[in-house]
Amino acid sequence: MAVQSVESSTTPSASGAFGPAVALSCRECGERFELGPIFACEACFGPLEVAYELPAGDPEGLRRRIETGPNSIWRYAPLLPVPADVAELPSLNPGFTQLVKADNLARELGVTGELHIKDDSGNPTHSFKDRVVAIAVQAARTFGFTTLSCSSTGNLAGAVGAAAARAGFRSCVFIPHDLEAGKVVMAAVYGGELVGIEGNYDDVNRFCSELIGDPAGEGWGFVNVNLRPYYGEGSKTLAYEICEQLGWRLPDQIVVPIASGSQLTKIDKGLKELIAIGLVEDRPYKIFGAQAEGCSPVSAAFKAGHDVVRPQKPRTIAKSLAIGNPADGPYVLDIARRTGGAVEDVNDEQIVDAIKLLARTEGIFAETAGGVTVGVTKKLIEDGLLDPSLTTVVLNTGDGLKTLDAVAPTTGPSAIIRPTLDSFREAGLA
Amino acid sequence: MAVQSVESSTTPSASGAFGPAVALSCRECGERFELGPIFACEACFGPLEVAYELPAGDPEGLRRRIETGPNSIWRYAPLLPVPADVAELPSLNPGFTQLVKADNLARELGVTGELHIKDDSGNPTHSFKDRVVAIAVQAARTFGFTTLSCSSTGNLAGAVGAAAARAGFRSCVFIPHDLEAGKVVMAAVYGGELVGIEGNYDDVNRFCSELIGDPAGEGWGFVNVNLRPYYGEGSKTLAYEICEQLGWRLPDQIVVPIASGSQLTKIDKGLKELIAIGLVEDRPYKIFGAQAEGCSPVSAAFKAGHDVVRPQKPRTIAKSLAIGNPADGPYVLDIARRTGGAVEDVNDEQIVDAIKLLARTEGIFAETAGGVTVGVTKKLIEDGLLDPSLTTVVLNTGDGLKTLDAVAPTTGPSAIIRPTLDSFREAGLA
Ligand SMILES: [Zn+2]
Ligand SMILES: [Zn+2]
Repeated sequence: MAVQSVESSTTPSASGAFGPAVALSCRECGERFELGPIFACEACFGPLEVAYELPAGDPEGLRRRIETGPNSIWRYAPLLPVPADVAELPSLNPGFTQLVKADNLARELGVTGELHIKDDSGNPTHSFKDRVVAIAVQAARTFGFTTLSCSSTGNLAGAVGAAAARAGFRSCVFIPHDLEAGKVVMAAVYGGELVGIEGNYDDVNRFCSELIGDPAGEGWGFVNVNLRPYYGEGSKTLAYEICEQLGWRLPDQIVVPIASGSQLTKIDKGLKELIAIGLVEDRPYKIFGAQAEGCSPVSAAFKAGHDVVRPQKPRTIAKSLAIGNPADGPYVLDIARRTGGAVEDVNDEQIVDAIKLLARTEGIFAETAGGVTVGVTKKLIEDGLLDPSLTTVVLNTGDGLKTLDAVAPTTGPSAIIRPTLDSFREAGLA
Repeated sequence: MAVQSVESSTTPSASGAFGPAVALSCRECGERFELGPIFACEACFGPLEVAYELPAGDPEGLRRRIETGPNSIWRYAPLLPVPADVAELPSLNPGFTQLVKADNLARELGVTGELHIKDDSGNPTHSFKDRVVAIAVQAARTFGFTTLSCSSTGNLAGAVGAAAARAGFRSCVFIPHDLEAGKVVMAAVYGGELVGIEGNYDDVNRFCSELIGDPAGEGWGFVNVNLRPYYGEGSKTLAYEICEQLGWRLPDQIVVPIASGSQLTKIDKGLKELIAIGLVEDRPYKIFGAQAEGCSPVSAAFKAGHDVVRPQKPRTIAKSLAIGNPADGPYVLDIARRTGGAVEDVNDEQIVDAIKLLARTEGIFAETAGGVTVGVTKKLIEDGLLDPSLTTVVLNTGDGLKTLDAVAPTTGPSAIIRPTLDSFREAGLA
């Protein structure tokens, strides 16, 4: 299946379905393959990623085209594996979420430079997953898949269910059968199939892998398995938006949560692309990874100076980051070290404190993953690893409404009073 | 306090703090007052609203200025009671939410014209309340208030808490002491004072009115009481956005939920302003009001042909619309009748069905209030009151994540299976 000439007129790229994407390439051995629903290298079993021939030679024209494009990730269509007319096709149109200048938080953290929160809770289903799923949906359309699927215990289930509904796909999402009632509702409300598997999350994933290899799974696009190379590219848009919203400028430092690690590697890829095209000035940036102490395999490897990541059994309130054996861990280590960043972790109490700190200072109610990045930012500053005089961007990838349980035990009324002014005065609230 | 000349150099308007706003005017007797923290006419006790001298003579220039403005309600600063540099001041920057072309829903409802959902769940705290609170915060700043306050059982509490945090105000929100735990968390997480009142929602409101008249309430801005004239203006931005997002075109029909009725009257005001300035062509539009059957005082009055609204005791799952004695009810009746619209209601079961219909067709998970507008739209089409061949916009003003309980009893997995392909096939899911 490996191709020598990727310009062949019979590839999907020639028809424009994948825009500037020209091939899939193996991240380990560099072997190239035609754009298709494949995810592992035939030669070495390494992960595949999308390779491009990006627009070159007219950065000013490209910048204008982007700036006059839609208020969604589709403004970056010229840099994504999607057709030029993608914004006309039915999708949730995620992205172009607020980059919030966090002056109050900066003061509390002793940041004297610019501090920004990239707040992805503003996406249609309130997590960054809408970005990656949107690209996977587009690929599924091109490959003729009719069912969109995934395994999930949270954000991804809602993102797939909602995107499939809008785009006119059947969806079938697999979850552990004993998931909390609220999360089941969020996953089921979009009306697709929701299947509870008698087993834990590992059992669910094992079953999905079986299904992909079976005739029963024909026509099924698993967004983060056989569509994974496309899916992952959605995270590049975080890098594009941050730079555009900073006035086409690279941040000096960026703090990214680590689950599988894919998001961090794609943000790095996106920043490098903007430099290569000439949309931003070429200067150094540092990427920092953030984990929860209860699931910190990459942070542990970083601190120990290892190149390999030893799997852990997750035990943290940051459930959306609880991947004990992160596929992209080694790449994350590379990037943190190459850019002069670091990988750090915070414990559950620090996560909750950071969620409240962000809410109290900026009015942003983050998911536990946002507590992880804000908490890690605080720790990195205290430890002298993050320079508080520079421009820093911290990602919040999800919404606090989805992880109410994390803050509930320590969040309540400041007073209960009778409906009288006397009672009000007694409570010291005037 | 009534003023003859509103151009006096000592009024706040002259300093630019209120932009194009020049006075408060009584909606009943027309008497004018200086812009200040007042909400009732001294002459007749009628409600006050903001009066403007809107920019005239250069609609094309204004349109360009708006289109190149920020992606928030502040792009309409020239039409709001805010200073020209409002976007530079700390706020949540709400608005410019998606107008979703709802082709799938249109097919299900038999709509042959354009059907759009204005999806305000995309706001920072996921309801339209962010719009109105943002304007109130700006007025509070000008009046030198230091505490932002409100009574609330839901969306408003979060909107005030978050906006106050970002803008640097103290906040104090009053709630009934027995509010559900999840709603308490959403209101308390922003770190302001949250005070539980031993009593029901009416007791909470009575107490707030007492507090406003007491020295203990000095320096306090109650967003929907003494800041109400400014607060209400935030809803105009829904009208502006809808028209701009339609390509500077009036919708033929618009379906708006009714709580106090204020939102519907301000949308009408906004549409009329756009016509007066020349930003849209002057042609007829119809405004429809939507209520829950369990709290349908305006719908009942409309159907009975009454001009007055008889209060009801609310009993509905659409809690954000459960105002039994809506202050703007008579104005809503006027507008529905004048424009050729109607006011209709749906029961709790129809509300839940409509939430699911919208989620299944468009991937939008609406709050119960969104179930009310979608359900009423369906009913109005069936009854021949809404023309399915025209351009219709339906408002979703809040987020389903906040009213999970409404759909939980009827939303669950389609199957529970063992993690084997056999079990999968037996369930008929292939
Ligand atoms: Zn390889
Ligand atoms: Zn009056």
